[in-house]
Amino acid sequence: MAKNKIKNDAITSRDEDFAQWYTDVCRKAELMDYSSVKGFIIYRPYGYALWEMIQAYMDKRFKDEGHENVYMPMLIPSSLLQREKDHVEGFAPECAVVTKGGLETLEEELVIRPTSETLFCEHYAKVVRSYRDLPKLYNQWCSVVRWEKTTRPFLRGSEFLWQEGHTVHATEEEAREETLKMRDIYNETAKELLAIPMLTGRKTEREKFAGAEETYTIEALMHDGKALQSGTSHYFGTGFARAFGMQFLDKDNKMKYMHQTSWGASTRLLGAIIMVHGDDNGLVLPPRVAPTQVVIIPIQQKKEGILDKAYEVETALKAAGIRVKVDASDKSPGWKFSEAEMRGIPVRVEIGPRDLANGQCVVAKRNDGEKITTPLDDQLPEMVKTLLETIHDEMYAKALAHLESHITTVTKMEEIGAVLDEKGGYVKANWCGDEACEVAIKDAYQATSRCIDEHEEANGVCPVCGKKGKHIVYFARAY
Amino acid sequence: MAKNKIKNDAITSRDEDFAQWYTDVCRKAELMDYSSVKGFIIYRPYGYALWEMIQAYMDKRFKDEGHENVYMPMLIPSSLLQREKDHVEGFAPECAVVTKGGLETLEEELVIRPTSETLFCEHYAKVVRSYRDLPKLYNQWCSVVRWEKTTRPFLRGSEFLWQEGHTVHATEEEAREETLKMRDIYNETAKELLAIPMLTGRKTEREKFAGAEETYTIEALMHDGKALQSGTSHYFGTGFARAFGMQFLDKDNKMKYMHQTSWGASTRLLGAIIMVHGDDNGLVLPPRVAPTQVVIIPIQQKKEGILDKAYEVETALKAAGIRVKVDASDKSPGWKFSEAEMRGIPVRVEIGPRDLANGQCVVAKRNDGEKITTPLDDQLPEMVKTLLETIHDEMYAKALAHLESHITTVTKMEEIGAVLDEKGGYVKANWCGDEACEVAIKDAYQATSRCIDEHEEANGVCPVCGKKGKHIVYFARAY
Repeated sequence: MAKNKIKNDAITSRDEDFAQWYTDVCRKAELMDYSSVKGFIIYRPYGYALWEMIQAYMDKRFKDEGHENVYMPMLIPSSLLQREKDHVEGFAPECAVVTKGGLETLEEELVIRPTSETLFCEHYAKVVRSYRDLPKLYNQWCSVVRWEKTTRPFLRGSEFLWQEGHTVHATEEEAREETLKMRDIYNETAKELLAIPMLTGRKTEREKFAGAEETYTIEALMHDGKALQSGTSHYFGTGFARAFGMQFLDKDNKMKYMHQTSWGASTRLLGAIIMVHGDDNGLVLPPRVAPTQVVIIPIQQKKEGILDKAYEVETALKAAGIRVKVDASDKSPGWKFSEAEMRGIPVRVEIGPRDLANGQCVVAKRNDGEKITTPLDDQLPEMVKTLLETIHDEMYAKALAHLESHITTVTKMEEIGAVLDEKGGYVKANWCGDEACEVAIKDAYQATSRCIDEHEEANGVCPVCGKKGKHIVYFARAY
Repeated sequence: MAKNKIKNDAITSRDEDFAQWYTDVCRKAELMDYSSVKGFIIYRPYGYALWEMIQAYMDKRFKDEGHENVYMPMLIPSSLLQREKDHVEGFAPECAVVTKGGLETLEEELVIRPTSETLFCEHYAKVVRSYRDLPKLYNQWCSVVRWEKTTRPFLRGSEFLWQEGHTVHATEEEAREETLKMRDIYNETAKELLAIPMLTGRKTEREKFAGAEETYTIEALMHDGKALQSGTSHYFGTGFARAFGMQFLDKDNKMKYMHQTSWGASTRLLGAIIMVHGDDNGLVLPPRVAPTQVVIIPIQQKKEGILDKAYEVETALKAAGIRVKVDASDKSPGWKFSEAEMRGIPVRVEIGPRDLANGQCVVAKRNDGEKITTPLDDQLPEMVKTLLETIHDEMYAKALAHLESHITTVTKMEEIGAVLDEKGGYVKANWCGDEACEVAIKDAYQATSRCIDEHEEANGVCPVCGKKGKHIVYFARAY
């Protein structure tokens, strides 16, 4: 076993300029490209394949819990968007507006969906009559448009891809259960598929979704110490139901308002994968989400038997359910190595003439550069399969250690700024519950409250005002 | 064996009013609903599940041929759309235009994609440098917007779901091969998945896609004798490449223009399924595309052992890879029967107390109403599996017989109108190649040229002008 890592010169190093490193990786790994409209990106094949892997996993989880996919119109009449007061206030400033169609000026302006609550509400009001029709558990995969001033690939765009779940229930209890269940599914997706540990909790009043009674979130920690909100799940109570007349006849023969939830996760998750796991050689993909898990690189591929062996190994790995490719292009092995590294392919298998003579090959791990010489026999597929699981566990453990070492408990105001400037990450503090104190922290240190801890009770005083704490809250600078 | 069909009173009969029957099926089978914006429909869970089945099949076919999925922006700058003359002329009148974003008037108007050729062209011009980068075989699943005056669910909408493939190649030969290959994949999808036979051929100049050099099509025949264009594949030559500066350095060290194709199929295919196979009891789904292939309906389900048996059979069928559901709701069996019929579920299994006592069950086929009494033993899954394949073959054969009996060769102008009025379907005629004659037929009988026969040579005179035929063309009234 030997370690062997060469810095990839094609990109800026993380420590030098993290923002530039991020953009470099997005482009050099060919995840995306810019289009001629600001904030609207092109998802190139490799980036879209990553999103397809996430979609496949989440879609199955959703369906296993009884959800059904639907598709709602892309355009929302502005009168419909205005039906719920908080909601329109939250989204109107970000809307793209269609004013002309088929060469004519429209009578009513239409908004490209920034999110589809209002459409689902209108539909549920129409199709749900009695408790027998409940619950309705719908989900939609689509893109949404929110006009943003500052944009960054995957993290903040004027258009992004996502799923939005919208459910209605007969009781508050059931709807609250759904809200938490979906937050848990997001959390499990992050852990099981993306090898990313999350902080989970509830948003404060100030940070809640426009129109929600309660917003639950999963929050990741990037390599640079900034937080990234990665999925949210909202309990609406009956607020939208009242605004949209969503009533049903209950078992007791009374008309009641439906209890509602919505939950969404987006292509932001690609940003999380990049910024949690990536290194100075490019992407580092967790094996379960990697479109290609293993790349086989033949050395001196023109020599007899080399390419045949490479394809033979490919066939054997494929049969074991591994996503594998041979790179038989006419580039040099070194070029292929750094391309595979840039793309974050978890495992590289090298087969050269000497390997072939010795009946062995070299298996290299992308996550830590470890190289393992191993027999080229029928045990190889099982060995690689186990290795992929090991890599997942190692990546999760590393990210968890980073997260845990970046949660700092503070009791005084000035500590907050010091911690954020020195090491970043999350600052854990008691909070009195007053929005003014939340805003004071934001104004002083550009850190927002990420979530309220659901498990730990307040045990001290608010670092801003000194009053008794009501909740334990995590503050951080965030994307 | 016994035949047993009861007319479903919930919908208009096909012979009475085909258009109304179609709308009734769309709504009562809960495939779709209307939204508050004209021409923008809601894909309800059952309709969307059908589309997901089609997507899964086609996506695999595309990827097996080396295509990769990407996602391009939803909005196109109007200057970009205007780059290719024929293209903008074809689409500008149908565009939805965004003029405001984030509360401000935009400097340049943005068009919601009616199709994405221009975006792919701009991207290819940027990322393709040499012959080594070719071919690029990209596909995109998305929705597009085309402002339509007259709309009908799935057949013509201001927004519809589709896939659009866009490829670039180093040579004309390769691009032409791709164009035909994709047309063939559409044709096979129709036959293998949807049990729909298609006429295939080439479009005339007049009916070609805006900007294409050649358009190939698959055309289905609906129950009412009208044609439905169901998928098209275009060869662009180097027209767009010249307009967008899409050049590459070829092996001979010369800069050359790329040869391009595009191809698309949409949720129109749902309309084809409905109108080819449906009957007076509702939808009739071909088994391979049916989201639920078998529904098990327990009779007197409160009696001991009935529901247990139903679930036991469900488990056994599931294990055999069959998509199956038990309807254990508290509705009456008769109600469940007609609901399953309306939804077109290919096979219904009835299990009642007498069946249980006799160790048998009744298996009913949706396509022809045939009922088969069969042992409730471990042979049942295999029996049902075979039956589903039989149903597919029967449905295809029936649709093929309908198509073949509705192709009428004509030699005189007045025959065209007579055939179309009396039996509908396709009128097969020699055509001189003159657009005026094509238009004359359209003006006189509201029939358009659907496609030019690629295999049969012209063998007579044009029925309009009497000049020597150049091609054999199929004319029909169409959706």
